[in-house]
Order: sequence, then structure tokens, then C-alpha cells
Amino acid sequence: MTETQNYIQQNKQRFLDELFSLLRIPSISADPAYNEDVLNCANAVADFLRNAGADDVEVCETEGYPIVFGQKIIDPALPTVLVYGHYDVQPPDPLELWESGPFEPVVKKTELHPEGAVFARGAADDKGQFFMHLKAFEAMMKTNALPCNVKFIIEGEEEVGSESLGTFVEANREKLANDVILISDTHIYSMEQPTVTTGLRGLSYVEVEVEGPNRDLHSGLYGGAVPNPIHVLSRMIAELIDDNGHITIDGFYDNVEEVSAEERAEMNKLKDDPEHFKSSIGLRGVEGEKGYTTLERTSIRPTLDVNGIWGGYTGEGAKTVIPSKAYAKISMRLVPYQTPEEITEKFTKYFEKIAPDNVKVTVKPHHGGMPYVLPSDSEEFLAAKKAMEKAFGKEVLPYRSGGSIPITALFEKVLGSKSVLMGFGLDSDAIHSPNEHYGLSNFYKGIESIPYFFQYYTELKNA
Amino acid sequence: MTETQNYIQQNKQRFLDELFSLLRIPSISADPAYNEDVLNCANAVADFLRNAGADDVEVCETEGYPIVFGQKIIDPALPTVLVYGHYDVQPPDPLELWESGPFEPVVKKTELHPEGAVFARGAADDKGQFFMHLKAFEAMMKTNALPCNVKFIIEGEEEVGSESLGTFVEANREKLANDVILISDTHIYSMEQPTVTTGLRGLSYVEVEVEGPNRDLHSGLYGGAVPNPIHVLSRMIAELIDDNGHITIDGFYDNVEEVSAEERAEMNKLKDDPEHFKSSIGLRGVEGEKGYTTLERTSIRPTLDVNGIWGGYTGEGAKTVIPSKAYAKISMRLVPYQTPEEITEKFTKYFEKIAPDNVKVTVKPHHGGMPYVLPSDSEEFLAAKKAMEKAFGKEVLPYRSGGSIPITALFEKVLGSKSVLMGFGLDSDAIHSPNEHYGLSNFYKGIESIPYFFQYYTELKNA
Repeated sequence: MTETQNYIQQNKQRFLDELFSLLRIPSISADPAYNEDVLNCANAVADFLRNAGADDVEVCETEGYPIVFGQKIIDPALPTVLVYGHYDVQPPDPLELWESGPFEPVVKKTELHPEGAVFARGAADDKGQFFMHLKAFEAMMKTNALPCNVKFIIEGEEEVGSESLGTFVEANREKLANDVILISDTHIYSMEQPTVTTGLRGLSYVEVEVEGPNRDLHSGLYGGAVPNPIHVLSRMIAELIDDNGHITIDGFYDNVEEVSAEERAEMNKLKDDPEHFKSSIGLRGVEGEKGYTTLERTSIRPTLDVNGIWGGYTGEGAKTVIPSKAYAKISMRLVPYQTPEEITEKFTKYFEKIAPDNVKVTVKPHHGGMPYVLPSDSEEFLAAKKAMEKAFGKEVLPYRSGGSIPITALFEKVLGSKSVLMGFGLDSDAIHSPNEHYGLSNFYKGIESIPYFFQYYTELKNA
Repeated sequence: MTETQNYIQQNKQRFLDELFSLLRIPSISADPAYNEDVLNCANAVADFLRNAGADDVEVCETEGYPIVFGQKIIDPALPTVLVYGHYDVQPPDPLELWESGPFEPVVKKTELHPEGAVFARGAADDKGQFFMHLKAFEAMMKTNALPCNVKFIIEGEEEVGSESLGTFVEANREKLANDVILISDTHIYSMEQPTVTTGLRGLSYVEVEVEGPNRDLHSGLYGGAVPNPIHVLSRMIAELIDDNGHITIDGFYDNVEEVSAEERAEMNKLKDDPEHFKSSIGLRGVEGEKGYTTLERTSIRPTLDVNGIWGGYTGEGAKTVIPSKAYAKISMRLVPYQTPEEITEKFTKYFEKIAPDNVKVTVKPHHGGMPYVLPSDSEEFLAAKKAMEKAFGKEVLPYRSGGSIPITALFEKVLGSKSVLMGFGLDSDAIHSPNEHYGLSNFYKGIESIPYFFQYYTELKNA
């Protein structure tokens, strides 16, 4: 392992140069104008895999953009780690807000990154992060230190919904068979407090419509005598959450995982600085479910938010209308073991139940996503924790993120294995935004951590 | 009087033809492209006044469109009626919904108007209605039956807020001195149940803004821990009206006129057909303040309505945002003796009071208007009631409308006289909408009623 780590130290500048060559390819999956660039990027990834020492490297065609596959099977009896990543990126708009070209990577120093950070679209999401795995693999191969089997799938449609991935995984269960999936597409809490993401929330998203009268009315002539759909919708929204911050939907909490006191204690070791939390978003005060910390409210507890509301006259000036209809978009973040189907159904029933008789209510389901959790006493988590502790020289804590990565649920269902979300980004990396960047320290700490993960995971599995 | 009524009967077709000539002029005050048409219309009105027998006819310049003045003073000792109307019209958009040209008047039969109705922009609002006064005046002049003095002011900016009227009235108190103001710019309850409008509600209109975080947030990462301004606004809106339909604003009802049991009984003689009310607007059920009928809720009681609401993502599909801000437009209809200033202030105080500490609330006042009431035991009302009863051959009831006509308060304040709102339109006339029309029966009943009003009002004043 010392040799492997030495190899990494000796090749740092080349690793960065190679990453720059990937970042220069505008592999924007959402824009058909970049079709050729996306394909070129897939081929570049395949070349990197081959050069690092992977076998059976293949640019696998799909209905959409190809999935790059590669593997190194050293002994079928040993465990197999499947590395997932994506080589496509978000569009860079709005371009005018970039301080340097989104596809002209440069290293610049920032307050958070005195050692420098790479500025480019995809620097953190996800080129900079999946590339760490290619380089860690190379380091293990060149120093004869790969302790187990490894497979790679790097897809090109993550930013447009991973549409081809499901079919590909279903059709290639054998080829993708593995013991654990390793993904670097998330962030750590901070460089001072590294974390492994052990949970992601699921999602149920609905659009609701409340109809009062069948046409817009003059509020002077009808005001005070008819159900105003904006009032009714407001009252119904107000009713969805009680004074203790509990969601009132019947049976909403039935399947919610009660996180152990131990895990909550562990989780709350993260410095949950309320003043910083508030000042970073100009907040006058937090709120939420009674009995839980801000960290818990945004991770281990399900939530309900109105994401949009509209109805009536919303232009300049005044218009005295009672609209026929009012609308809202409402989403719920789910935790294990809630499912989007269950929660969408419970929401719909409840929303129809609390509607007054004199309006018509319609609930239209949008997409959903399953929650995901990696138990903090699992081998997978412990290997990741130990690996990062070795690389960072600090205690690593479990961290539940409030967001959703639906592919983890797909992998678990089809391939039967857990995903370890060992990302190295920071919340401040501006992914999906102008001036996306990825700290050099984050990049190198990632490459250093990965071989330790392979080592510790293999040891734990063989113990 | 018999002669006058005969004159009217003999000239019906000509009256209609003359109205058509006025309706052909697209006097759209809101659109500068029609500037010349509006001015031509003023001149046409002046010509009609002169030909009817008015003296001192003048197209009075203002900062905006001119006000047409004319008068006939037969004896300064006799009472003076001031007739108000407006010759400007609303824009006809959307044009494609008109079944015939908005400025090509035609008579068509409808279910409600088997005798025919004039279809054109301005047919009811207000050309068809103020023109009745010109023709009734002509009939009285030609038959030597004018029982008192009369003055006319017909303005050209009613549809754009009567901006020049205030200055004109202030500057011409002497010239406009009168005992009563007569306006036909409202509607009756129905042809079967004619009414005189004895009340108009006032208006207080505000726009509110609720700010939570200082930027839009990702609902996955922040949901459940921050005040969502849409939720907060919804809760605050829900709090503004209690389960009994009462507005909860501190002191909101302090100055509300308690209408006598007698007037309420009289008012409720109007057939308040709940099934028709509901079916006409596709309503599943009415609602409103406990203890009052639908008719009372929309006339003698103050109300609060949200006229618009918006915040967050309102486009197609799903976006998981917690917006920084949410907005609503809220209006309150006022009754005597509430004032817009008082109510706007009370609303603002209360809305700020009920706002939770962790959001910032801003209340921006829009325009307001004073409520208006004509007592149902006043000479002015009784003359109008008796006049219409004579023309219609039916009992005429007082009717409080939920809408607002701010000029009545202006007239009362500056000229010191009451306005009699003796309109002859119907709720179904589609004013401000495509296919505006005015029933021929309504038009002729109006012309027949007006000379009776002059007669009865003079008698009552001289009694």
C-alpha cells in the first residue's frame, strides 16, 4: 500500500493534466448539438480505462448515450467492487456568469481552497470524481496492489435521468455481478469533518388543483359568498403540517425507519452550527419537526414542501378576480421504508378527505424516487469510514443527505448490492451552476482513499 | 307626462338608430391609437345634447379626454338633477370571441332578450345607458314637460380610472351645483324584479410578500428545516378568515354599518335562488359569513378575497425548490362606514402581527375606494323607486351591489349630493367582455323611467 500511495504522490500533476483533457470535452447530454462530444468523451474514458490496466473495455451502445464498461478480475473467489460514475455534464448556462470558460479548465485559489481548485463544468459532477477511481485503479495496478476484482460502468445520461441505465443493468446482471457498488457523486460535510453519505431521501411529487366556481368571477359581485380556491388551497396546505411540524397525512409515518439513538448521536457529532446555517441563507430562524435537530430534519426525517403555488391575477397592479382554480406543486422527501407509491396514495386520499365539499380537488402524481440507506454498522460503510480516516487522518462520520439519487435503489433491486456513496465534493462546489469547481485536495484525498477502501473491504469480507 | 311617454313610443326606432351611430365610434380610452375616435365621440355627444335642447353645451378640455357638459335651467328655484355618464369604452379584446364586430352594432334575439338586444362594445357600459338620459331629456323638452333643471356631465375616462374628473369637479363646483346626481351605469336584479342600486362596496387592495431564506433552496437539502414562504403565506391567509366566515383582522368590523332588520327584510325579498346562483357559476356549494344570506354577504357585509397568489416553480413538470419569496394580492370589499385607509392600516398591522418571527413580511397598498350607500328612506331613492315602478308596473326593491364606483364618493364629498344609481342593465350583459349587449326592453324601460324620476323627484322636493 505504501507503494501505491507513493505512486499517487509521484503522478499528481499528470493525473490533473489528464483530468483537464476530459474536462475540455463539452459532453453535454441534454443538448443534441453536443452529440459528437458526448461520444468522444465515452471513447476517452474507455482509453483511460484501458491504459490504467482494465480488461474487456467496451463502449456499450444503448438507446441513448453509451455506457463505458471495463473490469479486472484477478480471482473469482475474491470480492468484486463495481465502480459507477458518469461522464456527461450539465449545460453550462448561464454562460455570462462564468469567470472562465466552462470547458477551459483552470486551477484557481479560493478562500475554501487555498491550495487551488479546478474550475470547469463537470469538475466535481462527476468527471473529477469518477476519474479519481480510474487513477486509484491505475495506481493499484502499477504497484501490483489490487486486492480484489473491480468493474467499472461510467454512463453518459445521468444529467438527463439515466434513461438507458435501467435496461442496461437488467440486461447485464451477470456481467455487472458484484459485492458492493462504489460511487463518488456526493459531497463530504467539510474538509475538517469528512463524512460518508449513508442515506438519501426518496421523493414523492404531486401537483394539486382546487376548483371553486367554473369561471373567474368579479370579487365585488361574488366576494364573500363563494369558495375562493386560493383560500381553500391555502387552508388545505396549512392543514398538512401541524404546530409541531408533523405532517398530518393519515399513516404518513407508518413505515418511517426509527433511527437508533446511537446513530442519531453519531450523526449529531457533525458540527451543526445554527448561526452559520442561518447566515448562509439569510434566515431569521429555522423551523421544523419538534424533537429533531436541523441535521436530522434534513436527513432522517420525511418532509413536505410546497415547491410552487399559483392562481388568480399575478401581474402588475390590481385586478379584483376570484379565480376558478388554484394550483400547487407539493413534494415529499421520503426516508426508509417509505415508498413513493405508498406516500403518493396516502397524500391523495388525505388531500381529497380534507377538501371542503364545495370545491373539486385533483391530485396529479409526478415522478417519485425510493429512499436509500446504508446501515452505519455494515461492512460497506465501515470499509469506507476506515479508508477515509486513513487518508484524512480524522474521524469520519456517517452523513445522511436530504437529496435523492434514484440509481442506488435500482442497483439494490436489480443487482442486490449496496452502494457506498463515498463522494469527496463540497456543498459549495457549485455543481449545476456557473463556476463549478473541485478542490485539488478533495481530488487527491479521493484518489488516496480509494485503494484503502479496496483493501479494507476485502479484509472485512474475508474476515 | 302622457305626451312625453307617447313621444318616446313614437321615436323608438330613431333613438335606436342614433345609439347605433354612437356605438360605431371606437372610443377606446385605454388605447392611444383611438385618440381621434374618442374626441369624435365627445363631439357627437355634444351634438346630441344640443339637438335635444340643452344650453351651454361645451366639450370641456381636461388633462386627458374632454368632459361634455350641457344644461337646461328652467328656474333656479327648482331642483337640479345632474346626469353623469361616460362615452368611453373598454378595449374589445379578445376580438376573436366576438360573434359580430364590436363596433358594428346589430340587434340579435337571445333567450333572455326575445325582443332583441343591441350587441356592441359600450352597448350597456355606458353608451346605451347614458344615451337613455339624452333621449328622455329630448322627450321632456319636445313635449314641454321638463319639471326641473338638468345638467349633464359625460366623461371620456371612466374606463381608465376617471383621472381628470376629480380636478374638473373641484374646479367647477358652481357650474355643477345640483340637488341629486343620476347615474345609469349599473344593473337591475332582473326584468322580473327591477331594483335601484342603493349601495356599493368600497375597496382596500394590498399586495403581500413573505420572505423566508434569502435565495431559492434545494428542497432535498433544506426541506424540513427552514420556513417555506409558501407554507407560511398559506397559513397566514388561512388565519385571515375563521370557521364562521369572519375576518379576523383586529378591529375590522369596528365601523361596519349594521343594516336595520327592516332593510335586510326588504333586501331579502329579492328572489335569492341558491340553485340558480350555484348553477350559473358551476358551484358545488356557497360559503361565507355565518348569519347572512348570499345576497347580504355580497352587499352589506365586508369581505376579504385573495385575488392572486404565486411563488416557487409554476412551470411544466417538477422542480424541487423552496422559494425565497411568496406573494399574494388581497382585496377587501368595504361597507359604510369603513374607509380604505383605515382598513389597509388594520390589515397591515394584523398581517405583520401574525407573521412568524422567522420570515419577513411586506405589505404594499394598492388603490382603494370608499363604500357608498343611498338610504332606502331617502327622497332620492323613493323617487327612483316610484319612477321605475311606474315604468315597469312592478314593485321595485333596493339592491346593494358588491362592486365599487369610486366617483359616487367623490361627488358626495365635493358636490355634497347623493347619487341615484338607476341603471337598467343586466348582470348577463357581458360588459368588459366579448359580445357585450344591452336589451332593447332595458333601453326603452330606461328612457320611460327617467321622465318619471324627474317628475317624482321634483314633487318630493317641493312637497
